[in-house]
Amino acid sequence: MTSGSARSFDRQWAELAQIGRHAQTGGYRRYALTREDHELREWFAGEASSRGLDLTLDRMGNQWAWWGDPDSTPGVVAGSHLDSVPDGGAYDGPLGVVSAFAALDRLRNSGFRPQRPLGIVNFADEEGARFGVACAGSRVITGALAPERALGLRDGDGVSMADALRSAGREPELIGPDPEALRRVGAFVELHVEQGRGLIDLDQPVALGTDIWPHGRWRLTFPGEANHAGTTRLDDRRDAMIGLASTILAARSAATTQGCVATIGKTVITPGGVNAIPSAATGWLDARGADEASLRRTVDEVTAAAADWGATVTEESWTATTRFDLDLLARLRRVLPAAPLLGTGAGHDAGILAGTGIPTGMIFVRNPTGISHSPAEHAERVDCLAGVDALTAALTELVGPETAGERP
Amino acid sequence: MTSGSARSFDRQWAELAQIGRHAQTGGYRRYALTREDHELREWFAGEASSRGLDLTLDRMGNQWAWWGDPDSTPGVVAGSHLDSVPDGGAYDGPLGVVSAFAALDRLRNSGFRPQRPLGIVNFADEEGARFGVACAGSRVITGALAPERALGLRDGDGVSMADALRSAGREPELIGPDPEALRRVGAFVELHVEQGRGLIDLDQPVALGTDIWPHGRWRLTFPGEANHAGTTRLDDRRDAMIGLASTILAARSAATTQGCVATIGKTVITPGGVNAIPSAATGWLDARGADEASLRRTVDEVTAAAADWGATVTEESWTATTRFDLDLLARLRRVLPAAPLLGTGAGHDAGILAGTGIPTGMIFVRNPTGISHSPAEHAERVDCLAGVDALTAALTELVGPETAGERP
Repeated sequence: MTSGSARSFDRQWAELAQIGRHAQTGGYRRYALTREDHELREWFAGEASSRGLDLTLDRMGNQWAWWGDPDSTPGVVAGSHLDSVPDGGAYDGPLGVVSAFAALDRLRNSGFRPQRPLGIVNFADEEGARFGVACAGSRVITGALAPERALGLRDGDGVSMADALRSAGREPELIGPDPEALRRVGAFVELHVEQGRGLIDLDQPVALGTDIWPHGRWRLTFPGEANHAGTTRLDDRRDAMIGLASTILAARSAATTQGCVATIGKTVITPGGVNAIPSAATGWLDARGADEASLRRTVDEVTAAAADWGATVTEESWTATTRFDLDLLARLRRVLPAAPLLGTGAGHDAGILAGTGIPTGMIFVRNPTGISHSPAEHAERVDCLAGVDALTAALTELVGPETAGERP
Repeated sequence: MTSGSARSFDRQWAELAQIGRHAQTGGYRRYALTREDHELREWFAGEASSRGLDLTLDRMGNQWAWWGDPDSTPGVVAGSHLDSVPDGGAYDGPLGVVSAFAALDRLRNSGFRPQRPLGIVNFADEEGARFGVACAGSRVITGALAPERALGLRDGDGVSMADALRSAGREPELIGPDPEALRRVGAFVELHVEQGRGLIDLDQPVALGTDIWPHGRWRLTFPGEANHAGTTRLDDRRDAMIGLASTILAARSAATTQGCVATIGKTVITPGGVNAIPSAATGWLDARGADEASLRRTVDEVTAAAADWGATVTEESWTATTRFDLDLLARLRRVLPAAPLLGTGAGHDAGILAGTGIPTGMIFVRNPTGISHSPAEHAERVDCLAGVDALTAALTELVGPETAGERP
């Protein structure tokens, strides 16, 4: 790590730290197509501009900053996303973008001349915090999420993605699959903070990703009948909350039995008054597992429990096991021989791109709390800089091999 | 019922029907200190003004419209409230206010000259939909709710009642107990739509209230630790949702055992992301019962269940059994001999005033759906007019006995 790229990293990090941080919780609230999102995108555009990179937008508004012309030769892309979950941490997403710029700075400062174009990407709406579908930016351009379905998604205030795009000055009619943007991507490497305790146990600062667990989201809506909480006998009630509560416990039990994980982290209760019996209760199930069969069994058990209460269950997303490209992984291992291999239960844009056949890999940076999606999410600066080192080595391998040093 | 007071009723009803109705749900959203609340208060002021009544505000902003001078002789007051629960019905509250104006119109049109002042009240924030404490308007003026506690209550967006008052152009410093306003009230009769099925079973249009069940609200907050839903093993989790779900089921079970009713109709999950393990989950328990001992046992069982998950339980309100004034009830029965007697599990401002020793009674109007706090809440027009008849008879008895007919 040269002091130049450390300075680049530190400066970028300090700038981003200001955007979308909630004063009370200390967490970040960076949701798609909001003012905070706009600020982050302006920041990305500024970083690209100050380096003389060509900024392009694809048909979902994902930002691509290119060094070289990817329309002549497909390039190698690093990057991640800048949005967050509600009260998320600083690292999930931004670490990958900032590290990519720092690695590019280091390559350029060393006089390195790439043989292929090098790109940095900021994927839009990776967390799905506002509209409920994760990786919406990469899913739309790859065709995994139909534009008409994306545009009809609504946030908690009932605002559709189409209207949110219009409010942000964008044209909803333009969104859709973008094979041209994807054709420019010869390979993709996403650096990301680790979201579990794997690197703590392994006592290493960085790891290489092997696969992403199968995972999905299901919306469970329980019917009820609104009525007065004081004057309606228990026998006369249809209280939507009871079915939801019962199914939350069933989900935990099913996941335990099947060795998977299941979470209900978001609920919407209607009408939501303290003295009104709920007429509807919706919970979102996030379920993941190391293998698809156990995961499907978990979801089947939850669905059966919900059906006992008359609930409707809608699969909002499903992603099969994603295995990262083995040839790419072999090249990364060659230049990063000390890095252990890790699978992960977290979904990433890298997984969506891998699903289209683009050679894709991931680099994970140690998280000493093991906590993510929380203000407690962390990475030590020394590990972040080790991450920049690893990403620089990876990019050198993939866009090289020439360096100024080799051609005196 | 003269056609004049029916016209008065119909006109008022049509005007109020427009205010705060949600286009999609068909329910009303009339919350304290909002634009809708302001419109309702302007409407009330207009009704008072057009009849030449003296409009006064007490120290909590409850509106009183007086025919006669209650500072010389305490008067008889009818009325109710105009706010609603989220997506509430049209009748809960407004029926009492509209019927009071219609009854007053009928008395005046008949040439009736009262021997005591007659007042009509619109109590502020009866439902507590925004700040969580029901009957806040009457509780503050009677001293049942300390002003500093009321001012510190916060709505779902974190806005305190003090700030909401300021935004509405009011002075938070002025709110507090108002014995002077209460001294003007010699008796109070609140007409209200029934919120259960009692009058359906009894096949009667109106009933007289005997008592209000003991009832209260408790806030249950479960601790957790925010973390990633995909990468955190079940054993490593502290998921606040699990305790809440478990306690919701325990509450239903305890209420069933004790013959009470218990409802969790509102929850707040933090941070609330689909892929974030909840770091906190709060549910509000509304519990009521025909007797205090069973109700306390119910709440004790729920509290014990919540404590198993490390939850903190805060009693937000508690109201003991309220028995309406027996002398007043006897006078109402004399003029309304066909009306059956009913107790109720719903809280009302009438109950708060009764707690201060003011002679207080209630008249209930049949609800053919038995449903309240929902757009399905209803009363047939013929029953509403029977309610106006009953309220007219009650007021005639209480402010009479002179009528123009008796003094030819």
